[in-house]
Amino acid sequence: MPQQGDADFLGCTELFGGLDPKVLEGIAARGTSRLVRAGQAVFRQGSEPTHLHLVMKGWVKIGHVTGSGAPLTIGIMEPGDVPGCVAVFRHTPYPATATAIVDSWLLTWPAAVVSELMERHPRISANALGLVGGRTEEMLHRSREFATEPVECRIARVLLRLAAKAGQPVGGGTEIIFPLSRQDIAEMAGTTLHTVSRTLRMWQRSGLVAGGRRRVVIQDEKALRAVTLDH
Amino acid sequence: MPQQGDADFLGCTELFGGLDPKVLEGIAARGTSRLVRAGQAVFRQGSEPTHLHLVMKGWVKIGHVTGSGAPLTIGIMEPGDVPGCVAVFRHTPYPATATAIVDSWLLTWPAAVVSELMERHPRISANALGLVGGRTEEMLHRSREFATEPVECRIARVLLRLAAKAGQPVGGGTEIIFPLSRQDIAEMAGTTLHTVSRTLRMWQRSGLVAGGRRRVVIQDEKALRAVTLDH
Repeated sequence: MPQQGDADFLGCTELFGGLDPKVLEGIAARGTSRLVRAGQAVFRQGSEPTHLHLVMKGWVKIGHVTGSGAPLTIGIMEPGDVPGCVAVFRHTPYPATATAIVDSWLLTWPAAVVSELMERHPRISANALGLVGGRTEEMLHRSREFATEPVECRIARVLLRLAAKAGQPVGGGTEIIFPLSRQDIAEMAGTTLHTVSRTLRMWQRSGLVAGGRRRVVIQDEKALRAVTLDH
Repeated sequence: MPQQGDADFLGCTELFGGLDPKVLEGIAARGTSRLVRAGQAVFRQGSEPTHLHLVMKGWVKIGHVTGSGAPLTIGIMEPGDVPGCVAVFRHTPYPATATAIVDSWLLTWPAAVVSELMERHPRISANALGLVGGRTEEMLHRSREFATEPVECRIARVLLRLAAKAGQPVGGGTEIIFPLSRQDIAEMAGTTLHTVSRTLRMWQRSGLVAGGRRRVVIQDEKALRAVTLDH
């Protein structure tokens, strides 16, 4: 069940920001809370978008796979984000799979309720357009990076982006607060596990990063940023 | 000045489809026709989106550059497309430069008029959301290709995509109807001129493509498709 405070939270999200508190309460009341355990799927690539999901707590990874291609992590969704919203708005199958990175709480609404809410409150449509437009631009920048940047640069960007989004200070460095394997990094940077391992070993020796299994600490952000600077 | 028939044309576009003919006439009447010569910019990356542009006739290339990175062609816009619309909807600077490939006619509206039209006709907002969402998915697929596919596969995809969008039958093959240099192909596939030249020479020898300066004919579509099939 949705909880008290959910309406306030919705008012701070990009999708529902700017709506009247009473309207937000109504929207929260129509949602259903759902706990998705770490490693479980929120929705799967290719399936019909029956529900809109909003992350209330936790982290959700968006991964895209092809027949024979390597898996690619397109993004990490944080509280306030609405993974898969484009598919819901367009009534087309999910183009990717969303997986909870840690135990995560979501608030969900049936797609038909979302359509009804958007018709009744044009502000939601306007917000949705801004949100989806922002994602298009983000994908544009990612495409450019994949197409033109050397792999070290892409790995550095992945780590800097995660530090900005999900970093906590730890002894002079910044630790990524959720478990992150070398394979995860490879899927975000569009490269192989082998290349990520080799690059991180090199950066560990020169003191740019530290960490162990599924744990990454950025120790020299300035040096890591320098890796991306020429691009 | 907008011409007779413009309203009918608008009614067939993704952005204005489904609107009442009277409304379409009003929208066409508020637009301004603009001729952009081949090689000239419709708008430039980083500038403010003062106008919405709809391609009425011609072809427009969307190119993204970075400080030191190689230029990347993100897409080719055809009649009915609205290059730069995301920036106009979000009131953020254009993320790329739009350049006419051939002499092209556009219909343009000031951004303020677009906002007003969207408020008055929620159908335009709904269409815009579908359109921008579609672009997000397209960018997702491009990202995945750039991140995970070998370069020959990306070059083959560029040619097949152009043939589907802007191809005309010519003696058993399909010719891309606008001038297309090796450099253009390199910028679309996210690779170098050298690699494109080498790959096309190889494909010419084995009869997959033909052509000369700024001219490309796909002669064996099936074989070209096979290049992409493993990915």
